[in-house]
Amino acid sequence: MADPEYRLAVVDLLAALAYGELTAFERLADDGSFAPTVADKAALAAMAVAEYNHFSVLRDRLGELGVQPYEAMQPFMPALEDFHERTTPRDWLEGLVKAYVGDGIATDFYREVSAYLDEDTRRLVLQVLEDTGHSAFAVERVRAAIEADPRVAGRLALWGRRLVGEALSQAQRVAAERDALAALLVGGVAHRGADLAEVGRMFARLTENHTARMATLGLSA
Amino acid sequence: MADPEYRLAVVDLLAALAYGELTAFERLADDGSFAPTVADKAALAAMAVAEYNHFSVLRDRLGELGVQPYEAMQPFMPALEDFHERTTPRDWLEGLVKAYVGDGIATDFYREVSAYLDEDTRRLVLQVLEDTGHSAFAVERVRAAIEADPRVAGRLALWGRRLVGEALSQAQRVAAERDALAALLVGGVAHRGADLAEVGRMFARLTENHTARMATLGLSA
Repeated sequence: MADPEYRLAVVDLLAALAYGELTAFERLADDGSFAPTVADKAALAAMAVAEYNHFSVLRDRLGELGVQPYEAMQPFMPALEDFHERTTPRDWLEGLVKAYVGDGIATDFYREVSAYLDEDTRRLVLQVLEDTGHSAFAVERVRAAIEADPRVAGRLALWGRRLVGEALSQAQRVAAERDALAALLVGGVAHRGADLAEVGRMFARLTENHTARMATLGLSA
Repeated sequence: MADPEYRLAVVDLLAALAYGELTAFERLADDGSFAPTVADKAALAAMAVAEYNHFSVLRDRLGELGVQPYEAMQPFMPALEDFHERTTPRDWLEGLVKAYVGDGIATDFYREVSAYLDEDTRRLVLQVLEDTGHSAFAVERVRAAIEADPRVAGRLALWGRRLVGEALSQAQRVAAERDALAALLVGGVAHRGADLAEVGRMFARLTENHTARMATLGLSA
């Protein structure tokens, strides 16, 4: 934390993650309006609350680092809001696939990045990445829906591809705008980060995991 | 609780209140998408989480009463979903007015009804009616918006009238469908409830409080 550029990168990382949790909260709560039963609505609400709790832990840490948390998050608002606006689910199943696939990629990404962090920050990041139970819920519901009507698989597979495309385009935007954060990833900050070859391998791993998750849902990536 | 009709009315009351809290959670989280700043979004999220916690207290009590909570809530889903569908806010201010006015009427109503309940149930109802801080937040924001542009007052006053109209029409629907609950209100259950004259006075009080709330916002009722 003594290195000011590293500190800047950590603030950016925690702020992006915090705002991501806040929008995840909002999205899960919103998807509740598609829920076919009260039990499903309540289950989504419980997961949304877990995301909110992660958000508040990150917000508090940003405060401890001496920054105004909401100001630190503000730069990530446009990319995340645009992502969600361009990928608003039209129904219950699209919402579940988005939550599962989107959270999965985000979790993988932050887990990879956590390797380049100091011990304290890494522990915090891994804590808030903890699965809120949404994965098993989404997998179970999507698989059951495909079993009941195999034709939905094609539509949902296309939807999954669109989600990844939009996520990548917003991630590139963030990387272009936030130098310290990008530098953390490619070894520019105190040589903590990966070199470009390692970044390439990281993207290969993210893609591989995404393909595996789509297969778990019963969908082709 | 020994009186089966009274018990039925209490289950209905707690189930309606629980489902109301769950939709309040959803609505507040959803309104967050209109929030002009990250701080506003986070404030709404915190209030939504407080509503969820109220919901979970009521759900647990329903379980203790030996009923399946989600089944008990299901009958109230159509009226509450229709209400929210017919009164979807189009912007930040409509969302704030709806939350303030809607929660106000609901809180007043349940407080009135709590007079006819046994001690344990009354304590629980009053506990979950506790203000989550949303009122002060909404009043402050709406008044500031009217000060900045007095023309919004006319539109928001009309919006307030529409909210009351839709709420009354859904309340009538619930009263017509749920005999035990309606009987609790008009003295049919073990003579606990009010007589019709008292129901009339209760509606007068609800209307009066609503008018006062609109005035607090700077709006004519």
